[in-house]
Amino acid sequence: MQSNQPQHPFDLATQLTQQQSGVYSGHTSNDYANMVGPFGGVIASTLLRAVLEHDEILGEPISLTINYAAPIQEEKFNIIAYPSRTNRSTQHWYIELKQNDKTAITGTAITAKRRDTWSSTELAFPDVPLANEVTLTSLENAPPWAQNYDIRTIKGVPLAMDPTEQPDSVTLQWIKDKPNRDLDFLSLASMCDAFFPRIYVRRKSFVPIGTVSLTIYFHADSKSLENNGSQSVLGHTRALKFFNGYFDQTGEIWSHDGNLLATTSQFVYYKE
Amino acid sequence: MQSNQPQHPFDLATQLTQQQSGVYSGHTSNDYANMVGPFGGVIASTLLRAVLEHDEILGEPISLTINYAAPIQEEKFNIIAYPSRTNRSTQHWYIELKQNDKTAITGTAITAKRRDTWSSTELAFPDVPLANEVTLTSLENAPPWAQNYDIRTIKGVPLAMDPTEQPDSVTLQWIKDKPNRDLDFLSLASMCDAFFPRIYVRRKSFVPIGTVSLTIYFHADSKSLENNGSQSVLGHTRALKFFNGYFDQTGEIWSHDGNLLATTSQFVYYKE
Repeated sequence: MQSNQPQHPFDLATQLTQQQSGVYSGHTSNDYANMVGPFGGVIASTLLRAVLEHDEILGEPISLTINYAAPIQEEKFNIIAYPSRTNRSTQHWYIELKQNDKTAITGTAITAKRRDTWSSTELAFPDVPLANEVTLTSLENAPPWAQNYDIRTIKGVPLAMDPTEQPDSVTLQWIKDKPNRDLDFLSLASMCDAFFPRIYVRRKSFVPIGTVSLTIYFHADSKSLENNGSQSVLGHTRALKFFNGYFDQTGEIWSHDGNLLATTSQFVYYKE
Repeated sequence: MQSNQPQHPFDLATQLTQQQSGVYSGHTSNDYANMVGPFGGVIASTLLRAVLEHDEILGEPISLTINYAAPIQEEKFNIIAYPSRTNRSTQHWYIELKQNDKTAITGTAITAKRRDTWSSTELAFPDVPLANEVTLTSLENAPPWAQNYDIRTIKGVPLAMDPTEQPDSVTLQWIKDKPNRDLDFLSLASMCDAFFPRIYVRRKSFVPIGTVSLTIYFHADSKSLENNGSQSVLGHTRALKFFNGYFDQTGEIWSHDGNLLATTSQFVYYKE
């Protein structure tokens, strides 16, 4: 980043101040507020950033699980991150976010040095129009965090936005940061959570929801992410089951030119 | 269990001795040995059991993530499990397995009290023959753990077992404990890992592999599991991408009569 450019709101939102090795302080960002508390995607990215900025990090992120244990207040927080185990080519991390000395978020991550191997993508890239051929989705009534994304929905907007009955909860959307920002592990992690909750695609009634756990597998290295630059990535997601208060949201993020960058799943609490 | 019945090998393998609240000792089981070290599914179940037997547990398991940080020796181990945060209806857990004072496995789990809500399964039950109509898969040359399962493969055995070229890594299999055992959260967790590694379905060459992280979302309560009794459950899995040393294995477990019990994903290291 050149010194004469202002920092992107996303970088400010995930910014941490290191107190000592693996101990950070940070503050929630109004830009990425959700209905209640901060947007979970930016929280996940902030915990991942605590790993990426750790002085003992080995390699690049390959896996991340974030557990949303309690609501986060819009104020300062502390994060600790430490390697639970360091091997020759992999490293396991524990991460925790606290507010007022109480645990609000827990997480585990794996970083690794990758090597060139036989590779293969089995999943087919969805048959979709290019991002610039899809109408920008109006997000006027969406929470603040959504205002920081350029989202172009091909299929499956929440029913409040398009009350056409939906037989399934599938969403296909092009998404990129607004203003433009080159893709990296942090923004990719956040975009894995930037789907609207599946229950709002299936049902028109507004019910309280909250992600309890989010898992991301990174199928790309930093070079693959750099190749995407600031172009839109394609998100594809669906729920497999809603049962007595919890549903899954299972998805994939593809680069603009059809490289599968991440697969993700989350488990979401819902009321009624 | 009646006192005149011998304990099932699975219950012996996951057995823990409580030293104090949340601190347990255990020992690996020869019955569930893998090529190197113990079967990861039984390890996951053992960590989950540390939560289920904790005196502060709230509700039933809804989510579990287990990270395989280092190889486990075939010997005794210690497990700690503690609630990171307890809310009114959900509870977040941290779990760790150590051998010789070094962390070998880390995990997080969520337990919750469910309430009756609107529910819906979006995924369709695969079109498969009944378990008793499918030939028992010969597992003579498979590792010890596989001898404790009755597996009937409908599609996608490892190429070493059926060297027909496979265009994809999809496996569909009926599975149950051998001898019969009523399904519960522990055996279900283990069955989520009882698929052969996807790379062996895609490629004939034998390469070293190892799961680095496993996540399970439980879409069932204990009553749904009891309904399955000791009948086979249907496992369905596939890899979405293999890339420079890591592939995902994404799957579902269905009850014998078509109830989606769990969705699962894991990230697996492979060499070459």
